[in-house]
Amino acid sequence: MRLAELSERSGVSTATIKYYLREGLLPPGRRIGATTADYDDTHLRRLRLVRTLIQVGGVPVAKAREVLRHVDDESLGRTIRAGAALWALPRLPEPEAEDDAVVTARAEVDRLLEELGWSTARELAPLSPDHRSLVVAVASLIRLGYRWDARLLAPYARLMHQVAVHDLDNMEEYPSEAERVEAAVASAVLFEPVLKAMHRLAQEEESARRYGLS
Amino acid sequence: MRLAELSERSGVSTATIKYYLREGLLPPGRRIGATTADYDDTHLRRLRLVRTLIQVGGVPVAKAREVLRHVDDESLGRTIRAGAALWALPRLPEPEAEDDAVVTARAEVDRLLEELGWSTARELAPLSPDHRSLVVAVASLIRLGYRWDARLLAPYARLMHQVAVHDLDNMEEYPSEAERVEAAVASAVLFEPVLKAMHRLAQEEESARRYGLS
Repeated sequence: MRLAELSERSGVSTATIKYYLREGLLPPGRRIGATTADYDDTHLRRLRLVRTLIQVGGVPVAKAREVLRHVDDESLGRTIRAGAALWALPRLPEPEAEDDAVVTARAEVDRLLEELGWSTARELAPLSPDHRSLVVAVASLIRLGYRWDARLLAPYARLMHQVAVHDLDNMEEYPSEAERVEAAVASAVLFEPVLKAMHRLAQEEESARRYGLS
Repeated sequence: MRLAELSERSGVSTATIKYYLREGLLPPGRRIGATTADYDDTHLRRLRLVRTLIQVGGVPVAKAREVLRHVDDESLGRTIRAGAALWALPRLPEPEAEDDAVVTARAEVDRLLEELGWSTARELAPLSPDHRSLVVAVASLIRLGYRWDARLLAPYARLMHQVAVHDLDNMEEYPSEAERVEAAVASAVLFEPVLKAMHRLAQEEESARRYGLS
């Protein structure tokens, strides 16, 4: 398809598509003349992922380029390929201080991973920004005086593991490896708000069941 | 305890405590002299909740006051009391347009709630900001071309219901009604980052189990 059709089908303006091409977020089309190029479904899919990252996820252009470089690296196995892309997503800044709360939180998270038998998570802990995010989140609970330890965290972690099982089952329904990796990255950005809203709705529902509405 | 001790034990400066008192975020202490007042554990707990809302949740002062007014309204039943406080928390702006994606998303969310038998969530749907957040989140998936329907959403919603069951079980361990409502609000702000980080870690773990690390 030509640029105009790519714009029409993706809902992205031709000016924005040209910008993404210049920035290397979208691979060039196949040249079919001095000023025209041909695009295909892979461009359509890539545009969807770029919009997800930039417009929904608020990922800066340079970061998006880094995420996509991992998505496109066919030399990597699937876990590392999707993992590297996800690890490149921007996060909240980490606290500079290794205060008592962080030390306690790290010990509880380590105990949690051991109890759960999550051996990869334990092995990757020193590298994983997700491990650090969990330690930081638990530290802020502890700092405010809420007592959250491995025993209280474990049932939540088991449920989130079941969520991850559904994620990967859904991902496996995509026909190509490129689409599977793209879907893993897109859903990490897009699915968090869905889970968060479901969680709140479920709290209301369960509260009404236990205590009524009045 | 005096102001100095309240500051010491809460880790909040006396200047900030005075500011919270002036803004009505913290109830006044019991007067015990012309210039001194006595504070107790309820003040300590309230300070913790105020810090959670303002420093962690990024809630503006006026909003925090509104949330706390609901928390303190003993005339309300527990579901409504915690619910009203949670509904007052700030959210992402809603899209102005009722486009096709929003219409489709609302129909799928309605089907989902019916299939799940979440009767309160259905009854409160026209009022609930959480229902609207779910519709908006599903609409953004649909708009990007990811096909998410009630059938795909249902297993996630069932898992988030189990998460909510644990939330309420934990909440019920607090000794007083005031503490239970406070814990519900604080955990809504503080626990989302924990669940999000656990979800990502679980994805890595499950991916490594299925496909290995190389």
